[in-house]
Amino acid sequence: MQVYNAPLRDMRFVLHELFADDQFDAGNSAAFAEFTPDLYDAVLEEAARMSQEVLLPLNASGDLEGCTLENGVVRTPSGFREAYRLFREGGWAALASDPQWGGQGLPETVNKLVEEMTCSTNLSFGLYPGLTHGATTALESHGSEDLKQAYMPKMVSGEWAGTMCLTESHCGTDLGLLRTRADPQEDGSYRITGSKIFISAGDHDLTDNVIHLVLARLADAPKGVKGISLFLVPKFLPNDDGSVGPRNGVQVSGIEHKMGLKASATCQMSFDDAKGWIVGEPNKGLSAMFTMMNTERVSVGIQGLGVNEIAYQSAVAYARERLQGRALTGPKRPDLPADPIIVHPDVRRMLMTMRVYAEGCRAVGQWASRALDTQKHGETPELRARATDFVALMTPVVKALFTDLASEAANICVQTYGGHGYIREHGVEQFVRDARITQIYEGTNGVQALDLVGRKLAANMGRNMRPFFHAVSNLCEDMAGEGDKALAAQTAALQQAFGALQLTTATVARRAMKDGNEAGAAATDYLRMLGLVAMGYTFLKAARIATAKVAEDDGEVDFYRAKLITASFFFDRILPQATAGFLAIKSGAGSTMALAEDAF
Amino acid sequence: MQVYNAPLRDMRFVLHELFADDQFDAGNSAAFAEFTPDLYDAVLEEAARMSQEVLLPLNASGDLEGCTLENGVVRTPSGFREAYRLFREGGWAALASDPQWGGQGLPETVNKLVEEMTCSTNLSFGLYPGLTHGATTALESHGSEDLKQAYMPKMVSGEWAGTMCLTESHCGTDLGLLRTRADPQEDGSYRITGSKIFISAGDHDLTDNVIHLVLARLADAPKGVKGISLFLVPKFLPNDDGSVGPRNGVQVSGIEHKMGLKASATCQMSFDDAKGWIVGEPNKGLSAMFTMMNTERVSVGIQGLGVNEIAYQSAVAYARERLQGRALTGPKRPDLPADPIIVHPDVRRMLMTMRVYAEGCRAVGQWASRALDTQKHGETPELRARATDFVALMTPVVKALFTDLASEAANICVQTYGGHGYIREHGVEQFVRDARITQIYEGTNGVQALDLVGRKLAANMGRNMRPFFHAVSNLCEDMAGEGDKALAAQTAALQQAFGALQLTTATVARRAMKDGNEAGAAATDYLRMLGLVAMGYTFLKAARIATAKVAEDDGEVDFYRAKLITASFFFDRILPQATAGFLAIKSGAGSTMALAEDAF
Repeated sequence: MQVYNAPLRDMRFVLHELFADDQFDAGNSAAFAEFTPDLYDAVLEEAARMSQEVLLPLNASGDLEGCTLENGVVRTPSGFREAYRLFREGGWAALASDPQWGGQGLPETVNKLVEEMTCSTNLSFGLYPGLTHGATTALESHGSEDLKQAYMPKMVSGEWAGTMCLTESHCGTDLGLLRTRADPQEDGSYRITGSKIFISAGDHDLTDNVIHLVLARLADAPKGVKGISLFLVPKFLPNDDGSVGPRNGVQVSGIEHKMGLKASATCQMSFDDAKGWIVGEPNKGLSAMFTMMNTERVSVGIQGLGVNEIAYQSAVAYARERLQGRALTGPKRPDLPADPIIVHPDVRRMLMTMRVYAEGCRAVGQWASRALDTQKHGETPELRARATDFVALMTPVVKALFTDLASEAANICVQTYGGHGYIREHGVEQFVRDARITQIYEGTNGVQALDLVGRKLAANMGRNMRPFFHAVSNLCEDMAGEGDKALAAQTAALQQAFGALQLTTATVARRAMKDGNEAGAAATDYLRMLGLVAMGYTFLKAARIATAKVAEDDGEVDFYRAKLITASFFFDRILPQATAGFLAIKSGAGSTMALAEDAF
Repeated sequence: MQVYNAPLRDMRFVLHELFADDQFDAGNSAAFAEFTPDLYDAVLEEAARMSQEVLLPLNASGDLEGCTLENGVVRTPSGFREAYRLFREGGWAALASDPQWGGQGLPETVNKLVEEMTCSTNLSFGLYPGLTHGATTALESHGSEDLKQAYMPKMVSGEWAGTMCLTESHCGTDLGLLRTRADPQEDGSYRITGSKIFISAGDHDLTDNVIHLVLARLADAPKGVKGISLFLVPKFLPNDDGSVGPRNGVQVSGIEHKMGLKASATCQMSFDDAKGWIVGEPNKGLSAMFTMMNTERVSVGIQGLGVNEIAYQSAVAYARERLQGRALTGPKRPDLPADPIIVHPDVRRMLMTMRVYAEGCRAVGQWASRALDTQKHGETPELRARATDFVALMTPVVKALFTDLASEAANICVQTYGGHGYIREHGVEQFVRDARITQIYEGTNGVQALDLVGRKLAANMGRNMRPFFHAVSNLCEDMAGEGDKALAAQTAALQQAFGALQLTTATVARRAMKDGNEAGAAATDYLRMLGLVAMGYTFLKAARIATAKVAEDDGEVDFYRAKLITASFFFDRILPQATAGFLAIKSGAGSTMALAEDAF
């Protein structure tokens, strides 16, 4: 059973309440002056309806049917074309895009919540507009005015779709090895030749045109990543009036048979003297592509959160109705042949774990989204810079932490179902298969961890860490100062984990100066530690708010009481993972690196 | 790439060296007097050849093709019939069975290593003989002499196959709810009517007959699990001469579409006035079935180990050949366009983790197998009783720990492959899908944890724990006494984790007396803690042996050096997980149980 009701109350909580006092407050800036909280709530409600009514019904059937390649054209599963039409007409594709290009200009804080709903209900579907959004981000930042005028309006509206063509069969993480060639033409355009693989939404029947952003190498380019340029290569060359013109030299040479995400076409693309235009400066393609990639990385984290949420809800629904055994403390439903399995502590452990992961990621994701908005619209240059630092720090964390937890949650959901979870017809093993790719694409989670430890911690003398460290330490101090007894244990737990994180940060930095492998061997555990502290920060903030609300008894007391329990569970049962990470990192890289290559 | 070379050296290590001083020494008993270590080694080598040459080539193709149901008959994938014929002719089906029935009477210590190879190379295939073996175990212990004479020889030889028919759509864990009916006939037989689901190997084309062991309820039976009896119900009723006679009233009504394990037919079975014979006493069917189930649970753990090993090897092979990026400490292979990814610490972290899981589980599995043999063939009643206690304790641990780690290892393997791991053609995502069921069937891992905490710890005043606790504490004392400096840190780490386990055991026992939910909420974390301590015990023992061997410099020094590194990695990077479990359990069941059912 794929069960989903958009968690609107929790979304409103993270959107309006949790960060009301946060430094990243661009939501109040001129850019969003015309919007009101009520409008945001209405948008979320509409998105919920669209996700539940249009996307969810196509999730399992899309998985079963998959995409097909017929005569060089990719067909999406039944219903996807109509769903995409509704999605586009509802303005969902353009939600956070600049009004200059026809976007609605809503803040990322709202947009990311909508993305979460899309990904909960149909991850495969979500990739099509998601990739387009990423492509417009890069084009907007780096494209020439002509290119932008020609492509942005149609891509922002979703009339045309976008892709990012990076990977080749011999190079994924290491783009310096790529071989696709770009030859300059007299008219200022380029001819692109080469093969790409793993191109999400590389071709499909949802739009009239597909606009590829392609990494390629000029003939005289330096070796490695410093010789990569970015090109815009449309499937159909537009006519002067903007209509779709002749076919360009781009072909789908195959689609992949994947573990999951089957309704999203993953294409092998052949570029054969395809006409394209450069985006940004020659040999600066990688940084242009990273504009897109960073946007995508946060979105992939949100994809994880989306799957996590539906996995949680689907497990709860089953745990309430499946009758099996009796509560350890005596029958709870003597009227029934057995109790629903939700009475069993180990089942509750599973449900609470998924719940805590979802709520924790939603809060951390919202925190990062506020920084995304502030980076762009913050009032002062200092604030914008601080937000940029924070985004840089949190991007790998959001990507890797959320997706690791999503896979864990999806697996827990299957476990809640027992044998029934392993059977396709119940629809929950799909969550495991779909979520699995989010840990890999847009940079594997190992690469995210290296980005965090090797780049983000080290850059600018650790400046990226400051907004995060300050926020956590301020909260701990405030809470200690308030002397709130109910939350004293949780405050202490966060302080301890935070202390361990600070110590670990210093240790890793010191060791890495002598031996780069120390950073690499610590990276994955470090990212998890930092992520847990970030979640702990949001749970302690949430618990503080909830404590006040419960005392006020404001009519929504059940929501806040539940939040307090969820926070307790996090500190009791999940945060201890940080200690394991701390101890593992402390042991150093020695035993990780010791085995000779041929002894494996 | 599914890459597998049987880890024969490590198998010989756990078989001959690691437990040479262990109390469970039935390997030296009269039952095995005719066998020599050389013979065991030859058996392992032959099993390796069969697994690598016969089973592995059918693993990916079997997954792709799956089983089909045609006109009421299940067809296994291409090649399976021939492979089964070779398997049976090689005597592999009868390896550990009693010679009285035509078995070869080898010890479980050897048999479980062979099972590991089978499951590494073709988990789906392994289920067919595996289920038969489980069925003969129950039949041998509980069946009448007539039944045994009629069925055991053909089942032991693998000419006929066996199943266990427990689950019904509304009851899996809670067998007390089952509805299948058995009506006694005048000739002493019974008529069985009802529907079963999730019957592994419920029907297939590998054997001439399939013998079902079916749980059903007599008309006058008490309610719940105390009214369940076990019946033997053949697909074809045998003629007096032992040949296959008329069809019995058993039909396959469907086969499941599953996440993985696709070459193993999972059947829905209809029994319609099918003729059967009772196995054991009326209303005592559950304990007879548990004879089979306990055997199977250890074997399912070994299945996990099998997948873990091939996942590890397949990842190593890819990490050696995939070129991507440069080592953090400078290029290792300047002659190549990039270094193989095995140079990267985070890749090594992944490889070492899989390796440690596999070696640790192999050692713990061997320890349990020695107890299985000693339980049966130990010299004194006291020793047999002690072995029985140890088997009781370790059965849920082997089942749940090994399979949880297997799924983790399979996922790490995919992660090592990056995007290529998500594509079917590389063959490693199959490991994830196949391993996933091992955490569920034969009692979910949550049920295993409850069995451990709720039953095995509490039974007989904690007597089950003693052989385990004594072994660990004796080793720690010995090591401390020996004053081996090289292993002092590892000894201390094991002592600390063991201390935490003892403390946790007492805490959980004390709390559970007041509130049964305390045991349930602690169960999963507790099982993991105990499993980690068990692995730590075997790694410390292994390191002690390896240290001596390296000092001797006996020509195989590379193997022992690697073992020392593997042990270090375990203590450095994996054992710290036990601390997280300790802290989580310490917090109690409160936040796990607090949320109202309707607040989820």
